[in-house]
Amino acid sequence: MAIISLGSMAFDAIETPFGKIDKIVGGSATYVAYAASHLAHPIQQISIIGNDFPDEELNELKKRGVDMSGVEIVKDQPSFFWSGKYHLDMNTRDTLITDLNVLANFDPKVPDNYQGAEFLMLGNLMPSLQLSVIEQLKTRPKLIVLDTMNFWMETAMEGLKKVLLKVDVLLINDSEARQLSGEYALVKCAKHILQMGPKFLIIKKGEHGALLFHEDHVFFAPALPLENVFDPTGAGDAFAGGFIGHLAHSDDISFENMKTAIIVGSAMASFCVEKFGPQKLKEISKEDINTRLEEFVHLVNFNISLV
Amino acid sequence: MAIISLGSMAFDAIETPFGKIDKIVGGSATYVAYAASHLAHPIQQISIIGNDFPDEELNELKKRGVDMSGVEIVKDQPSFFWSGKYHLDMNTRDTLITDLNVLANFDPKVPDNYQGAEFLMLGNLMPSLQLSVIEQLKTRPKLIVLDTMNFWMETAMEGLKKVLLKVDVLLINDSEARQLSGEYALVKCAKHILQMGPKFLIIKKGEHGALLFHEDHVFFAPALPLENVFDPTGAGDAFAGGFIGHLAHSDDISFENMKTAIIVGSAMASFCVEKFGPQKLKEISKEDINTRLEEFVHLVNFNISLV
Repeated sequence: MAIISLGSMAFDAIETPFGKIDKIVGGSATYVAYAASHLAHPIQQISIIGNDFPDEELNELKKRGVDMSGVEIVKDQPSFFWSGKYHLDMNTRDTLITDLNVLANFDPKVPDNYQGAEFLMLGNLMPSLQLSVIEQLKTRPKLIVLDTMNFWMETAMEGLKKVLLKVDVLLINDSEARQLSGEYALVKCAKHILQMGPKFLIIKKGEHGALLFHEDHVFFAPALPLENVFDPTGAGDAFAGGFIGHLAHSDDISFENMKTAIIVGSAMASFCVEKFGPQKLKEISKEDINTRLEEFVHLVNFNISLV
Repeated sequence: MAIISLGSMAFDAIETPFGKIDKIVGGSATYVAYAASHLAHPIQQISIIGNDFPDEELNELKKRGVDMSGVEIVKDQPSFFWSGKYHLDMNTRDTLITDLNVLANFDPKVPDNYQGAEFLMLGNLMPSLQLSVIEQLKTRPKLIVLDTMNFWMETAMEGLKKVLLKVDVLLINDSEARQLSGEYALVKCAKHILQMGPKFLIIKKGEHGALLFHEDHVFFAPALPLENVFDPTGAGDAFAGGFIGHLAHSDDISFENMKTAIIVGSAMASFCVEKFGPQKLKEISKEDINTRLEEFVHLVNFNISLV
């Protein structure tokens, strides 16, 4: 099953309490592609890069089954650049620099050979660009997953509302769920947001795991307690890539299978944070992934005898 | 199996974003007793109360199989009084008033008929009092569970270290685990603390669930996502009561059974927060508890197929 993945491909500068790196490849679509390509093919990338994006990185992605025909290369501008600094809890960060560069004039085009893809991952970008990709598709994908953030709720809420009406799954974090719904208790947030379009809502809580809401059902996936978290950058995108990658691989979009997909996403996120940038996602094997999935089973499995 | 439970019995005044109550029965041993008495008998209470503690409350507890012969009644002083105000996130609170009253001169005495109890729950109190109860027991209980808090780490660390050497299970929250160990990542906190005496460590994370550590194993229990959290007071004690109550009821202190006990504890905590004070713990039936345990099963159960 093919996955179209829209998002940024960028450079990041990252400072955490455990280290600092001045320039490393990043961007939501980069992380989604590295995570999802362990599970499904092809990943049909839609993004934009400048004259500085490394060929080795593009070749590495192609080798993993990522189709680059939807990635526009701008010859006279640099790639999108983001710089941030994480606090000690690693759940909060300050953005230091956002240089849009090529992203300022991004007008995504869906290549003809992408038409007919069954899955669509809309990475965190301006809602009008997400909507444009949906509208260019001649057949509606079987499943559309949307990632967004507080910035768009503050600056492009009308556009975001239009996109919400057209997607199946919304991925946001807990503070964004509160902001979008105006509620505090996450159960109430979910009830409110499930009236806005999406049939499934995933609320990510970082090191505290993730919740999946659908109708009156709720599922909770823990994050793996890790000894060393070096860099949370891209963890949410790796989660998204693992999630949609598993759904595409198994070609099953039931609520039951989404539970498993969230565990796969959590596993990908747990790898992602262990090294700077997407490095660890490049290194892992199928065996590493399976070992980690088994750790999740052991982490939450219990026997219940009623009282 | 008998459970000796040491702790406070008190009055609380509580303010939350959802309401306010000027005087309600509270205290760690009160919550432990209400939660544990749904599961095991007898609960052998060790505490101290003043001339103002209501007879109806004592009778209600006795009716539920709580032995009061270890509860000292001081005729010329009021009971311990605590007043606190919760912030919007309900995970943090400010203490407004702490009137020790009878608790100031508490010198716990283990009645003869408590000797031979298999389980000991040491509720949050001055470490020297917890140690005194351990030392009065002629036969070491099969399992000793210790609750404590940051206040004792700051004011009575030497005493606390002595108690830690004598207990099996330590129950603390995440910030206390960091304070006690000097580490930040909870996995590292656990490694450190498991060198200090306890063989099992439970780190409570409030609405984010709880982690159980033992040797190299870790288990995660979620908190139930609730629509209405009215009052978190006593949730940790209800958790402790459900935990030790299940272990005593099943007479099985294996790691596997502790996982189940943590789920039972989480269920008791989820009831506790739904009303002010211990009210909801008085109202629930075995059927309510079983229904909630099944909700926990649905909350975390997933099928995994390896990739």
